[in-house]
Amino acid sequence: MRTIVLLSGGLDSATVLAMCRAEGRECHALSFRYGQRHEVELQAATRVAAGLGATSHRVAVIDAACLAGSALTGQGEVPKGRSEAEIGRGIPSTYVPARNTLFLAHAIALAETIGAGEIAIGINALDYSGYPDCRPEWLAAIQDVARLGTRVGATGEPVKIRAPLLTMGKADIIRRGMALGVDYGLTISCYDPSEDGRACAACDACVLRRRGFAEACVADPTRYRG
Amino acid sequence: MRTIVLLSGGLDSATVLAMCRAEGRECHALSFRYGQRHEVELQAATRVAAGLGATSHRVAVIDAACLAGSALTGQGEVPKGRSEAEIGRGIPSTYVPARNTLFLAHAIALAETIGAGEIAIGINALDYSGYPDCRPEWLAAIQDVARLGTRVGATGEPVKIRAPLLTMGKADIIRRGMALGVDYGLTISCYDPSEDGRACAACDACVLRRRGFAEACVADPTRYRG
Repeated sequence: MRTIVLLSGGLDSATVLAMCRAEGRECHALSFRYGQRHEVELQAATRVAAGLGATSHRVAVIDAACLAGSALTGQGEVPKGRSEAEIGRGIPSTYVPARNTLFLAHAIALAETIGAGEIAIGINALDYSGYPDCRPEWLAAIQDVARLGTRVGATGEPVKIRAPLLTMGKADIIRRGMALGVDYGLTISCYDPSEDGRACAACDACVLRRRGFAEACVADPTRYRG
Repeated sequence: MRTIVLLSGGLDSATVLAMCRAEGRECHALSFRYGQRHEVELQAATRVAAGLGATSHRVAVIDAACLAGSALTGQGEVPKGRSEAEIGRGIPSTYVPARNTLFLAHAIALAETIGAGEIAIGINALDYSGYPDCRPEWLAAIQDVARLGTRVGATGEPVKIRAPLLTMGKADIIRRGMALGVDYGLTISCYDPSEDGRACAACDACVLRRRGFAEACVADPTRYRG
């Protein structure tokens, strides 16, 4: 089975790639340059794709003006030092307009173009940042779009969108990845890393990642600043 | 009301822009460069946006490799000389993988970024080329995605996706546009135009367009080759 794996360079999508590879999938990794301030994540994605045996890795460019208006694309500051309780409340300023919808639209098109039968995405709805486009109901809607809006969906078997981490906690994800031999030192989760790829330790993504490693009782290989 | 109007440079989307302008909308036109062989349509889109009073016009670039594998993006020949009965049968080779899903994903993101309350798209399910992503069921699914996958949809009023031509025939569309003063000489529908923007008169888009003008009893302003 040919599978497109959305790869951000972070912990979750690296785990998804390892899971798909363990199932024997031929994995085509897909990342995006969309004006994110943490573009260093694309270097991590390249390392992860190579390290975990992706057959190909494509970085698609998205017109950054379409999804401006986020702390992650340069508008305002990335929030720091929020507690886990605060992170769970509401949609933060790091929300990027329709980001996962744009990512999936590209993946659906690419899947039809190269004949991939499935798309794997590392969203999860438990230890997450409150983004609406990480919820099961959004996932079901975009699956409908893939079925109804493509030739392959209208005439045969639609591309299947898999989100294997959807109901897993961060610690479980890390444990699963460790069992599959993922080197999380290759990944970067931080929303505001330094240019040499060191994490801030204080943004929502860092807080969730650190807690995950602590709960999983796994040494955190992240290179933090300072 | 601020409205994003998807503008291809063709007849349908020009009519949609005129309809939205007639309703007093502040229209922001959005076109795409996606590796289409008929890129001359973008010049038409620019003329139409200016001629019909769009407030802004953005041409977003989409990674062409994601939606390759179509006669419109260089793979194979554009079919010519098909009858109207043939055009209505099946999905033609000019289908572009997930094109309208990609277009709408960009429009949904841009709508949230600039605070637009609606998106208007010129799809129609009657006189059309058999593309799955022009059908009402696809439209309903992408509306769900807009509602569920955005901050504005999750917390307030989702962007409304309008397809005012959905159930109109080509002749009716032309009559409506003529009543609104649209100069269809600015538009180009052809899938395989010459570099100076002359239409081939034989592709599916030309066949449907010519029949529309004939049925509407309106002189066809299209510049044909030869």
